[in-house]
Amino acid sequence: MSEAGAEPQGRAGRRGREGGRAARRAARGGDQLAKLRYISRRIPVYEVLSEEGLEICEQNAETLLAEIGIEYRDDPEALQIWKEAGAEVEGERVRTPRGLCRQLIEKHAPGHFTQHARNPERTVEIGGEATVFAPVYGPPFIRNLDEGRRYATIEDFRNFVKLAYLAPAIHHSGGTVCEPVDIPVNKRHLDMVYSHLRYSDKPFMGSVTAPERAEDTVEMAKIAFGADFVSQNVVLVSLINANSPMTFDATMLGALKAYARAGQAVIVTPFILAGAMAPVTPLGVMTQTLAEAMSGIAFAQLVRPGAPCILGSFASSMSMQSGAPTFGTPEPALVLYGMAQLARRLGLPFRSGGSLCGAKIPDAQAAHESSQTLLPTVQAGVNFVLHAAGWLEGGLASSYEKFVIDADQLGMMQTLAQGYDLSDNGQAMDALREVGPGQHFLGCAHTQANFETAFYRSSIADNNSFEQWEQEGALDTAQRANTLWKRWLRDYEAPPIDPGVDEALQAFMAKKKESMPDAFT
Amino acid sequence: MSEAGAEPQGRAGRRGREGGRAARRAARGGDQLAKLRYISRRIPVYEVLSEEGLEICEQNAETLLAEIGIEYRDDPEALQIWKEAGAEVEGERVRTPRGLCRQLIEKHAPGHFTQHARNPERTVEIGGEATVFAPVYGPPFIRNLDEGRRYATIEDFRNFVKLAYLAPAIHHSGGTVCEPVDIPVNKRHLDMVYSHLRYSDKPFMGSVTAPERAEDTVEMAKIAFGADFVSQNVVLVSLINANSPMTFDATMLGALKAYARAGQAVIVTPFILAGAMAPVTPLGVMTQTLAEAMSGIAFAQLVRPGAPCILGSFASSMSMQSGAPTFGTPEPALVLYGMAQLARRLGLPFRSGGSLCGAKIPDAQAAHESSQTLLPTVQAGVNFVLHAAGWLEGGLASSYEKFVIDADQLGMMQTLAQGYDLSDNGQAMDALREVGPGQHFLGCAHTQANFETAFYRSSIADNNSFEQWEQEGALDTAQRANTLWKRWLRDYEAPPIDPGVDEALQAFMAKKKESMPDAFT
Repeated sequence: MSEAGAEPQGRAGRRGREGGRAARRAARGGDQLAKLRYISRRIPVYEVLSEEGLEICEQNAETLLAEIGIEYRDDPEALQIWKEAGAEVEGERVRTPRGLCRQLIEKHAPGHFTQHARNPERTVEIGGEATVFAPVYGPPFIRNLDEGRRYATIEDFRNFVKLAYLAPAIHHSGGTVCEPVDIPVNKRHLDMVYSHLRYSDKPFMGSVTAPERAEDTVEMAKIAFGADFVSQNVVLVSLINANSPMTFDATMLGALKAYARAGQAVIVTPFILAGAMAPVTPLGVMTQTLAEAMSGIAFAQLVRPGAPCILGSFASSMSMQSGAPTFGTPEPALVLYGMAQLARRLGLPFRSGGSLCGAKIPDAQAAHESSQTLLPTVQAGVNFVLHAAGWLEGGLASSYEKFVIDADQLGMMQTLAQGYDLSDNGQAMDALREVGPGQHFLGCAHTQANFETAFYRSSIADNNSFEQWEQEGALDTAQRANTLWKRWLRDYEAPPIDPGVDEALQAFMAKKKESMPDAFT
Repeated sequence: MSEAGAEPQGRAGRRGREGGRAARRAARGGDQLAKLRYISRRIPVYEVLSEEGLEICEQNAETLLAEIGIEYRDDPEALQIWKEAGAEVEGERVRTPRGLCRQLIEKHAPGHFTQHARNPERTVEIGGEATVFAPVYGPPFIRNLDEGRRYATIEDFRNFVKLAYLAPAIHHSGGTVCEPVDIPVNKRHLDMVYSHLRYSDKPFMGSVTAPERAEDTVEMAKIAFGADFVSQNVVLVSLINANSPMTFDATMLGALKAYARAGQAVIVTPFILAGAMAPVTPLGVMTQTLAEAMSGIAFAQLVRPGAPCILGSFASSMSMQSGAPTFGTPEPALVLYGMAQLARRLGLPFRSGGSLCGAKIPDAQAAHESSQTLLPTVQAGVNFVLHAAGWLEGGLASSYEKFVIDADQLGMMQTLAQGYDLSDNGQAMDALREVGPGQHFLGCAHTQANFETAFYRSSIADNNSFEQWEQEGALDTAQRANTLWKRWLRDYEAPPIDPGVDEALQAFMAKKKESMPDAFT
């Protein structure tokens, strides 16, 4: 009974059939959350950087693009494309005249777009007032309370896809929710894409580790959505990281071109550890991020005018002791706020933030760092939020417990972003008149009518008395989360899929796998 | 070496004398933090509630004051004061004509004031762009990893005063940092006030549990500061809670009058568990909070025009399961943002927020809830932040470990609130030009010049590699915090105090204690 507000859809449905109070609550609470396909923000964005600061970053980014330039490595076609567009190309260095990248983006790149899910009820908007939460991306390890830390497998991959499918406030199935290292590296993408299509019906991300794997992803999407549909609509959003500072490599450029030519969306993200891949100051990081992202997105517009692009920013600061990335500290938050403003001024959807942390376990450090990243993420108006759940240890591990703890926080963000109810019911003057001085509101009509849905109900927090908490074993948050994710997986039911589509997907995979020997590097 | 950024002042000084790199770092990092007596916010406030919403709350609060009214209980003098001011008094119910309370406040109450510390270097500003962090207030229990949870003693009280004195980002010694239940209830206030004056030199809060205890506090302040100084300056800020809904009791009114007549500041705080003491909607809570606080503060202006007052808001939502208060959820954050705006429009300093949580131990729940309260606190522009460190278990326990974990977060807030450096050094164009594509920034001149102070350095977070963290015992945040608070207390050195003042304070206490038998209820 303790988590109606953040309960998986399947369970809320079953509970609903129990009738009475639970059904009423499900109808107004849990289901309301479940039905929000993405956050449609109704609170203002928090704009922290001044107009002067914004202009400085924009001017300096133009200076960087025009005078220092960006390297496009091992990709002669890219250099040719830039040359034809009017850039000065010297070796692999591309210098673009002031204003060129911005003009290309403003002329061609859409300000928002729709990413279709195979279940139309899960389709998301990307850009504008929309915020979409997607799970952690990339960790080679998993961690849970039972096994500690170990390499991830395809079984873990499926589990995280299932958990993301079940979490009401996670809108997107994500991409590499963990690296299934038990599958050959050259075939892994097939199993990953299949898992997203088979075990979830939420939108998902494509492979970017090689241009041909990007093409495989598009082929599988065509099987699931139909080739015509894919040619006309965005069904894939994929992650193109710049090799900061000021470099794109052939792998990422190849994937970018493959997706752009297929009319599928890319997130161009300078991945920055300030002090190593960028200067140590927020403005320096923002200037470089803006320049790199603008260059990559303008390039995508040259490849295919109108290619849907998301401007990405991933910025962490560096630990002076260890050189490791640190998260949840003030400097990355300042970068996040400022970059969101810069992306809005450029008219592009923005990706950043998440539930980031450097902690090794889902303890207080993990939670502080995650909250200190996630709340700025929502307030800044980030449109696409990768790593919204499960990220641990600087992205080296996908944590089962942290996944469900984070998912609960995402539900809170969903409620927060709805802002205030200014209606008569929200004003509650009836309640104030009915109760009056010195009395309790518990029994009044307004409270009775609103109580069950008035407050966000956490699936993880223990709000019992100290005595009851102690009696129940004095569990910490991670221990409670351990019970929760196991229950979610136990109760998981796969969404329906057309058997013909499933068969075709499996046939495609089998043929591809047979076509090449296993490779593990 | 791991916590220069959040290191106690005493240690930073000693370390400074070691010379070389540590001294350089202390001069630029730790000391900079230590020298900030309070936060002078340089980022904009985050205004979440619309103009329409603000006007609704203001109009409805006037309706509440004029039509429903506020009860002033067991205090005939208060009723007489209100009658003379033009209120309609019926029994103990006080109804004020629309606009009267606002007019009294706008005419007389200062928009900001200075609270003096016995060490002038610790004096704080309250109001405007200033944010002052004070420790937890009120818990009868303490918790630490060694002893678990037990009743608090005067020894614990002294320890928390010492920890608050040592924490660079805690600006205020607070009040009842825990309840020293080993001291008779009618004499406890003497030991508490003495502890603040003797073991810290930061500003502190007075006793409010009875009017004569408020008067004792003022007397002790006169010994410490001089009677003339106290008559001309604010040296005490004290906490007057309304008995919500819509009631003030004689104890609180007595303390309010005592402090107001002595020219000392009060925080008038409706203490609200939404659903019990107020309606379940954010607007309902805000309307009631505004009305109650305006009534109390207007009353203080009638008692002594110009009495410095802080508008307080303490709002939690209710757990549907247990009826317990919950913290860090979206609804209290919405109330906090809106109340900060309403207080600003009224021209009053504002108190709210802190590092609140319902968790029983300093785990992930505690951290999420605390961060989800603290970050809104800073962004909303709260001026006086009680419970900024050490609050656990809905305020039932003062936690040693959480105190130092929270103190680290407060340091981060201090950095965040400084915003962006728009200078040439902040822009870092030299670094971008020097390094260029594909290279590392680690060795460049700009990084070398800025690296040691560029990023906030946590005193608690572990940012080492997984392997090193494991080798060092795989400690969680609370375990690291346990080591830290013990080291702080071990290295604590009391600030100097005039021996004559100390003697006079002790003599006053002894005389007072002899004058009455012990009472334990």
